[in-house]
Amino acid sequence: MILATLRDGTADGRLIVVSPEQDRFAPAPVKTLQTAIEQWEALAPRLADISEFPEQLDIVQLAAPLPRAWQWLDGSVYRAHGELMDQVIGVVKPEVDFPLMYQGASDKFYGPFDDVRMPGEDLGIDFEGEFAVVVDAVPMGTSAEEALAHIKLLVQINDWSLRTLAGPEMKTGFGWVWAKPHCSMAPFAVTPDEIGEAWRNGRVCLDLLVDWNGERFGAANGEPMEYGFHELVARAARTRDLVAGTIIGSGTVSNSNFRDVGSSCIAERRAIEIIDQGEPKTSFMRFGDSVRMEAMGVDGRAPFGVIAQRVIAA
Amino acid sequence: MILATLRDGTADGRLIVVSPEQDRFAPAPVKTLQTAIEQWEALAPRLADISEFPEQLDIVQLAAPLPRAWQWLDGSVYRAHGELMDQVIGVVKPEVDFPLMYQGASDKFYGPFDDVRMPGEDLGIDFEGEFAVVVDAVPMGTSAEEALAHIKLLVQINDWSLRTLAGPEMKTGFGWVWAKPHCSMAPFAVTPDEIGEAWRNGRVCLDLLVDWNGERFGAANGEPMEYGFHELVARAARTRDLVAGTIIGSGTVSNSNFRDVGSSCIAERRAIEIIDQGEPKTSFMRFGDSVRMEAMGVDGRAPFGVIAQRVIAA
Repeated sequence: MILATLRDGTADGRLIVVSPEQDRFAPAPVKTLQTAIEQWEALAPRLADISEFPEQLDIVQLAAPLPRAWQWLDGSVYRAHGELMDQVIGVVKPEVDFPLMYQGASDKFYGPFDDVRMPGEDLGIDFEGEFAVVVDAVPMGTSAEEALAHIKLLVQINDWSLRTLAGPEMKTGFGWVWAKPHCSMAPFAVTPDEIGEAWRNGRVCLDLLVDWNGERFGAANGEPMEYGFHELVARAARTRDLVAGTIIGSGTVSNSNFRDVGSSCIAERRAIEIIDQGEPKTSFMRFGDSVRMEAMGVDGRAPFGVIAQRVIAA
Repeated sequence: MILATLRDGTADGRLIVVSPEQDRFAPAPVKTLQTAIEQWEALAPRLADISEFPEQLDIVQLAAPLPRAWQWLDGSVYRAHGELMDQVIGVVKPEVDFPLMYQGASDKFYGPFDDVRMPGEDLGIDFEGEFAVVVDAVPMGTSAEEALAHIKLLVQINDWSLRTLAGPEMKTGFGWVWAKPHCSMAPFAVTPDEIGEAWRNGRVCLDLLVDWNGERFGAANGEPMEYGFHELVARAARTRDLVAGTIIGSGTVSNSNFRDVGSSCIAERRAIEIIDQGEPKTSFMRFGDSVRMEAMGVDGRAPFGVIAQRVIAA
């Protein structure tokens, strides 16, 4: 099942069910994805039953599947990314026996084709390609095994980051406010069955193709998460109930053979340059730059659709 | 103007306008405080015009004024608190020229009399008494001077904390997920004029009386913030638009004469005991423990009403 949200002038938009060919749609029997996820047990079968898609889909009309959410918790569970980032930020993180996670802004997710407003080119504007899951209500104390069944939808996210501000904030121990403005979301939220065998062990095992200004920048695979999404959900729910519609991210997709497959963010490439050449050679994004992100399905199609955005001055 | 939210079975409850004596109310012309703050310019005069309060107020029926919000950003700007906490957590934070701030859970705020569910007594259950502000929509890049006019309401918060988990999470640099479950809010959200001269320089200059199991624990004054709320709002808005209804907290109210006035959280007292006696003597909260918090107005009344809660096992 493929879900998307049409802009209709309201903050939450209008939920639609998209055809398998991603070219047509049917209106959903509830107005918003937030409502659908709150009533998932009752509604999912009705949504899945829809097999006629009377209307032509114009993807430019799509917002983020969840244009806003009550909670966004982003993990960081690709070891290659973490190690490269520590080098470039200049921090020594303690070894911990739990997945890294921070709480980010959830009051707005940019749609897949929205221009992204940034306050300055000097702030180290960077993209971060990642996968995420949307859960229904998860009670406090849910185990990782139980958490798997709470993962109702998969999404693809660009977690915009301002690197110049990330280090100073991180060193306070308080996480990020400045360095993590609103994220973007690819147009389609899909049930795990939509990606077939590529959903395994709580991981989205697909290549995430990232292009910067029209050139391939990375094609890392989502599989090598140190912790699966079910473990991230359990991590988040240890001391709180998770409200239905909570979005939980993987952190930047990254592979240990980064010199072959490239990276899902600029900061990683700069870290590699520091290691290899003593200093970073690649600049961060400038106003007018574009980024494109699409996960490649086993059938050669992009299950989440495409994020294609430009950075502009706020 | 005093606003509150009556429980009505929905997540956001029903907005009411409360009489100056805090004993009666009138229904508001919009259903929720979230809607009111989104349309504040148009609605505030209509709310302020209400002078007849036909219904008896039963405070036990009150939820948090904002039972959920799109964003909760909590500062930490009382120097005495920060210095004591660093000692007890065992971190050395860098000196920074910006106010400390993290993003916390905003999807639920406990009502003032709700039992608070915690997953274990071994997690260092602690209260944190603080003040906070609710803003209307704040554009990215708003200055501290401009921010003052965006502060529409003042609230009082108990920022529940799990100290055993706080140190390990903080040392990752990612901030807190486990250590910061949902907060509680005192029953009344008030316009700044309600506290008269005690609202000055962007600070709530009132004593915050904190009782633990019926005994006075602290009576620190809100004034000595290193940064005022307007500066906290500007801090938050540097790289993001703030959605209307964003709540921004001061962090635990704390005074440098903490040995005289006491503390607004247990961790601080433990830090003082470590300094004075070499080890902490005071235990954290147990299931069944109660906490009461009330700010004392210049007229001897509690402008935000009272938080009075019990901790129970989840």
